[in-house]
Amino acid sequence: MSTTFKTAATKTADVDGTPFVYREIGPTGGIPVVLLHHLTATLDDWDPRIVDGLAAHHHVVAFDNRGVGGSGGTTPTTVADMARDAVAFIEKLGFAQVDLFGFSLGGFIAQVIAESNPNLVRKLVLTGTAPAGGEGVANVGAVLQDAFAKAGETNTHPKQHLFFTPSRPGLTAAAEFLARLQERTEGLDKPVSNETIQAQITAIVGWQEADPSGLAAITQPTFIANGDRDIMVPTINSFELARRLPNAQLSIFPDAGHGGIFQYHEIFVKQVLDFLR
Amino acid sequence: MSTTFKTAATKTADVDGTPFVYREIGPTGGIPVVLLHHLTATLDDWDPRIVDGLAAHHHVVAFDNRGVGGSGGTTPTTVADMARDAVAFIEKLGFAQVDLFGFSLGGFIAQVIAESNPNLVRKLVLTGTAPAGGEGVANVGAVLQDAFAKAGETNTHPKQHLFFTPSRPGLTAAAEFLARLQERTEGLDKPVSNETIQAQITAIVGWQEADPSGLAAITQPTFIANGDRDIMVPTINSFELARRLPNAQLSIFPDAGHGGIFQYHEIFVKQVLDFLR
Repeated sequence: MSTTFKTAATKTADVDGTPFVYREIGPTGGIPVVLLHHLTATLDDWDPRIVDGLAAHHHVVAFDNRGVGGSGGTTPTTVADMARDAVAFIEKLGFAQVDLFGFSLGGFIAQVIAESNPNLVRKLVLTGTAPAGGEGVANVGAVLQDAFAKAGETNTHPKQHLFFTPSRPGLTAAAEFLARLQERTEGLDKPVSNETIQAQITAIVGWQEADPSGLAAITQPTFIANGDRDIMVPTINSFELARRLPNAQLSIFPDAGHGGIFQYHEIFVKQVLDFLR
Repeated sequence: MSTTFKTAATKTADVDGTPFVYREIGPTGGIPVVLLHHLTATLDDWDPRIVDGLAAHHHVVAFDNRGVGGSGGTTPTTVADMARDAVAFIEKLGFAQVDLFGFSLGGFIAQVIAESNPNLVRKLVLTGTAPAGGEGVANVGAVLQDAFAKAGETNTHPKQHLFFTPSRPGLTAAAEFLARLQERTEGLDKPVSNETIQAQITAIVGWQEADPSGLAAITQPTFIANGDRDIMVPTINSFELARRLPNAQLSIFPDAGHGGIFQYHEIFVKQVLDFLR
């Protein structure tokens, strides 16, 4: 198996007749860490420093959920269906228990899996995410549009506006993160389709209407992290999540947005490795 | 100098004619970490695991502020005056720059010092504390009374009720913390007087009326920590502090109260050592 995410082969698993693409690195045999991606993301959107950092001690598996990037099928329009697809993929790979690391939409999915399949999940890492009913979550369409407009006007990447603060350290962190995403030059994933993005936004808007009371039953140790000024999934939601989950630790990074874990990837990796130990 | 807080000698500094008692351990020569104590606390109320943990890498100085425990003089009734007294003590010891570690009321004082004497402060550690105007801070008198009543009825220590959650892990952590405070058996500090407690409560109530806008000017790196269900200084204040301070990192511990840093002293010491490095 490759020792870096940059050069990890893209593999395919047949999940009930649908091909799901994934990449895996790190030592096998322990509890794998399964990554659940964000809105618009494919395999190529994970920060290689975070994946490599975790893979120094864990078997790490990233995959595209149904309909996303190189995976087949049609992206469902609810978080619950996305969670079912993710569980089917995890079971297809033969894992009896996993640690889930969900970012943003992936964090919604991780929460649903922990509720619906508690025995499948050992620990949870929830970043840039929110409980069901979370404040401001349903604005994501408008926030996306605004960022795309800004990016177009200034000839910059939308992620700079969506994931980072406009301060000097924020802009530097954005440039470094975007450069890291360019490190892989071969065997790239397919980008998401507009249909997938629409379906994901529908699922996210639906999350705002869902009921967070089930969180009280999630007893798995949980590590929550975010930047202190997230405009996609407002930071207050991380706090609310930590208050609702019985066994959650929270870490909030300064002068950082939705991509706070990318900006502070060194500290974050250290925190997660400590937490998973 | 003693290598453990348990056996550290209690020394006295003459601060403008008033004797201030203090204890210090750890390697000298670097930036010292000065501890600012909580309501009712004396030198004997610091968790020896935290002081020893920090002193493995830092010169750590704990002291009783004016009128508290073995220190002379009368406890002032404002946080601003307490901050002036603390600065006078720090200058008396000849420190040109320090890291401040304030717990609860001590965290209020640390914020005022960082605002009034920015060059004196390199980094801030603020635990179980709140910005000026913080939610629920002025209820401290009622919360204290309630805890003392519960403690009397159940023949338990008030700190069990004030600092820890009533869950099984919370009760275990309370018992372990209270046992650690008993480790030192010689050269104990004098307890605080009722007059001191009254003056401190007056200062805390005044803090609720004070203006938090100056926090935006505190550019020092700050590490904020608390339990997720603090009944003395409600946890929401830690979040609010992190949002207002330009350069703050936040850590919230699960199933933990005002004494969350004592309950999670191993993780907390590690986090603070990383932060101060």
